Amino acid sequence: MKKLSLLLSFLLLVLSGYAQQAKYVFYFIGDGMGVNQVQGTELYRGELEGKIGITPIWFTQFPYATTATTFSATNGVTDSAAAGTALATGNKTQNGTIGMKQDLQTEVSSVAVWAKNKGCRVGVTTSVSVDHATPAAFYAHDPSRGSYYKIGTDLYKAGFDFYAGSDFIDPNNKDNKDGNSENLYTMAEKNGYTIARGYKDYLKKCKKADKMILFQSEKASEKDRTAIPYAIDRTKDDLTLADITRSAINFLSKDLSKGFFLMVEGGKIDWACHSNDAATAFHEVADMDEAVKVAYEFYSQHPDETLIVVTADHETGGFVLGTGAYKLNLQVLKNQKVSESGFTRILNELRKKYNNNVSWEKVQQALKENFGFWDKVKLNEKQEERLLAKYNNTFKGKEAKLEKSEYAQDEPLAAEAKRIIDEIALVGWTSGGHSAGYVPVFAIGAGADLFQGRIDNTEIPIKIAKAAGYTAE
Amino acid sequence: MKKLSLLLSFLLLVLSGYAQQAKYVFYFIGDGMGVNQVQGTELYRGELEGKIGITPIWFTQFPYATTATTFSATNGVTDSAAAGTALATGNKTQNGTIGMKQDLQTEVSSVAVWAKNKGCRVGVTTSVSVDHATPAAFYAHDPSRGSYYKIGTDLYKAGFDFYAGSDFIDPNNKDNKDGNSENLYTMAEKNGYTIARGYKDYLKKCKKADKMILFQSEKASEKDRTAIPYAIDRTKDDLTLADITRSAINFLSKDLSKGFFLMVEGGKIDWACHSNDAATAFHEVADMDEAVKVAYEFYSQHPDETLIVVTADHETGGFVLGTGAYKLNLQVLKNQKVSESGFTRILNELRKKYNNNVSWEKVQQALKENFGFWDKVKLNEKQEERLLAKYNNTFKGKEAKLEKSEYAQDEPLAAEAKRIIDEIALVGWTSGGHSAGYVPVFAIGAGADLFQGRIDNTEIPIKIAKAAGYTAE
Repeated sequence: MKKLSLLLSFLLLVLSGYAQQAKYVFYFIGDGMGVNQVQGTELYRGELEGKIGITPIWFTQFPYATTATTFSATNGVTDSAAAGTALATGNKTQNGTIGMKQDLQTEVSSVAVWAKNKGCRVGVTTSVSVDHATPAAFYAHDPSRGSYYKIGTDLYKAGFDFYAGSDFIDPNNKDNKDGNSENLYTMAEKNGYTIARGYKDYLKKCKKADKMILFQSEKASEKDRTAIPYAIDRTKDDLTLADITRSAINFLSKDLSKGFFLMVEGGKIDWACHSNDAATAFHEVADMDEAVKVAYEFYSQHPDETLIVVTADHETGGFVLGTGAYKLNLQVLKNQKVSESGFTRILNELRKKYNNNVSWEKVQQALKENFGFWDKVKLNEKQEERLLAKYNNTFKGKEAKLEKSEYAQDEPLAAEAKRIIDEIALVGWTSGGHSAGYVPVFAIGAGADLFQGRIDNTEIPIKIAKAAGYTAE
Repeated sequence: MKKLSLLLSFLLLVLSGYAQQAKYVFYFIGDGMGVNQVQGTELYRGELEGKIGITPIWFTQFPYATTATTFSATNGVTDSAAAGTALATGNKTQNGTIGMKQDLQTEVSSVAVWAKNKGCRVGVTTSVSVDHATPAAFYAHDPSRGSYYKIGTDLYKAGFDFYAGSDFIDPNNKDNKDGNSENLYTMAEKNGYTIARGYKDYLKKCKKADKMILFQSEKASEKDRTAIPYAIDRTKDDLTLADITRSAINFLSKDLSKGFFLMVEGGKIDWACHSNDAATAFHEVADMDEAVKVAYEFYSQHPDETLIVVTADHETGGFVLGTGAYKLNLQVLKNQKVSESGFTRILNELRKKYNNNVSWEKVQQALKENFGFWDKVKLNEKQEERLLAKYNNTFKGKEAKLEKSEYAQDEPLAAEAKRIIDEIALVGWTSGGHSAGYVPVFAIGAGADLFQGRIDNTEIPIKIAKAAGYTAE
């Protein structure tokens, strides 16, 4: 018996040596996607099907799941820059810092660079601007996440094969008083990049392009260059995270023999949660799941050589499912047809249309159409009074003082409508900032078995490197 | 190469057949212990050591970790009865129901019964009353978790080897108007049970006892029969969850050849969170960890045959680490020396001592000693005003209207002091009830590898049965 054991142990050892490396790596990061954001999306989908319990999204069904801690080097509660640096490079740093150690001097390289050094093709993509903290942590080095222009130049220095996002935030270096900074768009060609505007434009240009940057259309950027639209607000011409993922796979697959590494950030889960907007957040989580499905299609064609990891950088909003009554009423959120910001735009259009003299009846009609109030969602007297009070304060000739959250300034009436529908849904929010909860980690494919046991966010790129045979530097 | 693969596959199959069963099973349930309760305890310990980041407790370091969903058959947010039934029997049921299906007719048996049927020795233990929802779900069947007397009789019917908790809640069946219900204590002897009162009494009686019920001392039960004291309030004679675990292992080990199954509930994490009392909750999580360590000592002597699973039934309080500022200040909680309920008792003693005429200076002194206010914890003007207002409202001759939470009625001043120190610690609470977040699952030992991938709470007893070779009925 002991001999058999020994023989088996030896053979197991041999076998583990044969375990295949992850030639193709997908690294999905849901910004602000704490465990409750994920669980809430699934419970919402369950309620939409008329049941108590979850209708699972795709990535929660991966065979490996665990949780990760997220504190930064300096703060119990991390920001996206420090968390991005941890997830990209395996180093904890100060909040606000991109791709540098806590000393703000030492540059640290990311798992994307390690993949490139191994000869893999590399893509870094997001649903927000390409120079935002999370994607930036994979290619840039700066003590300040707000140095958007400098981060844009680092993008070219890193020289990855594919980038995608809504746009550059600061292509002309607005702080450059001499005016001698080169425009980031014109730098593209010099650095061998083709810029495509939207999915169709990508399809037109991808064949000839050596390296590619995929942005949303100029028209979309004119409206909002900081991010592609929320899934809940999307219109048919808008670029989506699934489009971005599909384009990235297509582009990186030009030479499959090299293998590839692709980071995809669902960046607006965080934004919706900074606005404490539950319906919008659930749509964003589900939307990132659609992008994961695109990766899964690739995985199912190369199951032995593909690793998909899905995680988050931190929790946003202190989001809680249940406010004291032992039940939820998430299904009511189906009546919310736009984000808080989307409803702000609708109210603005009304203001323009009626020369800032919008009747309560017109506003009620908009609330009915976009939140189902009075019609499908009954309001109690107090809730109605709260809406009317906001209307009286902000629509009666006075200028509305907008409600500010991290990434938005919204009409007080839009904020109040969202607060009321979230109350009816029985969900709670603690703040407009981040919290220090665990984030979820899900994995499937080659090396996914490394994601067992509770881990720290800095371990994730190291485990990916191990699975893929990259040398962490 | 293909032949070698085939050979290895065959040998792996053989090997997996040799994988050892979990002869000794520990099933820890932290009542109300959501992911943030665990993470908060570790971040608090980290801050006590003067660092940013976690000082891990024991069970979070187990090699397998995942999360579980908790909704009940009828509610998005479960109570402990439905969650206990899921964790014990693998069946979702109505909130409030113990060991029965949703029809409130069909009794369902628990993993403890399956273990007994296999011939294992069985223990069911808790830090609250032995007839409380979570332990009851392992041996009782009743549509209502409040039927404490009936649940007590079911305890004898189940006939497990070892039970422990603070006491019975309703030994005399207070609802029995005929007065012909037999007292639960006198039923013990008839059913072959010895009752021990405290750890020392257990040590005295354990040798001769055939079956054992371990309760806290009668003196302790006179003060509060519903639970053993909070860890933060503990005095040296109090029974502890580690004592209970040690006694249970000792008793179940009388015939190790049979193997055993032991459930240990950390029942007061939930109570502390119903009171939104962060310091008390962290102490309770750490205290359950001490009990896990006792189990781990056993594991380390029998690593190939022991399985330890640690999980929770639900989250309580909608507890959030961080309230908007990107930092925590958990270390301030070290100045809190008693629970909210413990401080209520201190204030009551002051009332008695000074014939209900307690000066603000005396109250200030008590706040200083028990929360560090003014001394180690600086208060701003508003916080001081809030305390003084509570004092004026409740100590100036008027009768204090107590603040009710699920398991406590506390002095408003105690509640305010706790709220203030939690605010300073930068933690948030959403409600006095439960929430629907994921709960953590940690596992080590024989069959621990079954706990991979996100699961539902009903899967846990089934996986334990699989690991231990029980037949689930």
